[in-house]
Amino acid sequence: MSANDPFIIAVPKGRILSEVGPLMACAGIEPEAEFHDESSRRLQFSTNDPELQIIRVRSFDTATFLAFGAAQMAVCGSDVLMEFDHPEIYSPVDLGIGLCRLSVAEPADLAANEDPRLWSHIRIATKYPNVTRCYFASRGVQAECIKLNGAMELAPRLGLCRRIVDLVQTGSTLEENGLVEVEKISEISSRLAINRTALKTRSGAVNRWVERFREATSATLSG
Amino acid sequence: MSANDPFIIAVPKGRILSEVGPLMACAGIEPEAEFHDESSRRLQFSTNDPELQIIRVRSFDTATFLAFGAAQMAVCGSDVLMEFDHPEIYSPVDLGIGLCRLSVAEPADLAANEDPRLWSHIRIATKYPNVTRCYFASRGVQAECIKLNGAMELAPRLGLCRRIVDLVQTGSTLEENGLVEVEKISEISSRLAINRTALKTRSGAVNRWVERFREATSATLSG
Repeated sequence: MSANDPFIIAVPKGRILSEVGPLMACAGIEPEAEFHDESSRRLQFSTNDPELQIIRVRSFDTATFLAFGAAQMAVCGSDVLMEFDHPEIYSPVDLGIGLCRLSVAEPADLAANEDPRLWSHIRIATKYPNVTRCYFASRGVQAECIKLNGAMELAPRLGLCRRIVDLVQTGSTLEENGLVEVEKISEISSRLAINRTALKTRSGAVNRWVERFREATSATLSG
Repeated sequence: MSANDPFIIAVPKGRILSEVGPLMACAGIEPEAEFHDESSRRLQFSTNDPELQIIRVRSFDTATFLAFGAAQMAVCGSDVLMEFDHPEIYSPVDLGIGLCRLSVAEPADLAANEDPRLWSHIRIATKYPNVTRCYFASRGVQAECIKLNGAMELAPRLGLCRRIVDLVQTGSTLEENGLVEVEKISEISSRLAINRTALKTRSGAVNRWVERFREATSATLSG
């Protein structure tokens, strides 16, 4: 990859996309119109900057494209950054969007009858097995993780496990499924993440974008 | 889980769902109306049979819910069954739906200039790292797999890797991205899959459903 190749920013599909648009606009990035059409199957988009292109990929894949240098920059959830913990990724700016938390939840009747301080081995359904194992290991609890890509909230009801670790925004999904949040593992937000090799070989462009996103985030947060 | 608990069938969201509906109808299963509404966020549905419930989960999660006994039966892509290769799952009926193939693809210019018989180490982006590694290992080729959940076709263009292993239906997505199919790893279809413990403890219900799906498949294929 040379300095003449386009500079690529990876952004996640889904939930965050509606928040990413205004922030990018504030940082001076205007994607071509089709980018805002969530039903479009296209993956790569041009912008008002002829050197900058956007790829729109799944939340978990933003970190993979970035870590292997297929993107130089990404909007990446801190949940994804924690789960992959890749040495090639540096994430200097908290963008203040995609706010939620990563929490442990369990059925309400279980929560009323058990003391978490007495756990030694637990089975947990989660999209975040690495984060979950580390979190519980630090307390001396062995967490056996069952990796699910979605529908975590079904797992306790169907006897797959008694507990889940999942993103929680309003808590309504948990409530609808008779689950209660018993522990918060981490507050989550999206970050501007950078490929470390790009930071060395294309530092001019990287630093310019980091600065613009910092300003856009301050403007958005104070506005 | 006792014989009085509901009998649960897991079906995959997305692409296959429109083919699963008619087949289930032919097997005598009529889900409640909301099941057919793909925009509904609900995950669990009743049917005309008071003992049978349906869960609608991601394609890769059907096998996980089944393997851990949270579902007794599932409609499961053979791609997913190959990737997980779980000893608790038995898949007796080829349902003849969700037909596609799992293939190796690469940029057209690469395909014209390289002989696959000369590969020793290759890097591949795929949703199927286990299948891919096994397939190439059997030929003495070491495949370094980069796991992506989607947008595989972007990877060669952005320099993540030169080759991908992905599901191919019509080939139009590959073509739009300048890729050609160079090897077929396997023909893919959906299968009726069973949890082996359920096969022992609830054999009456399991055998009845297997028989009904077998008949429905024959009727659909010959119809």
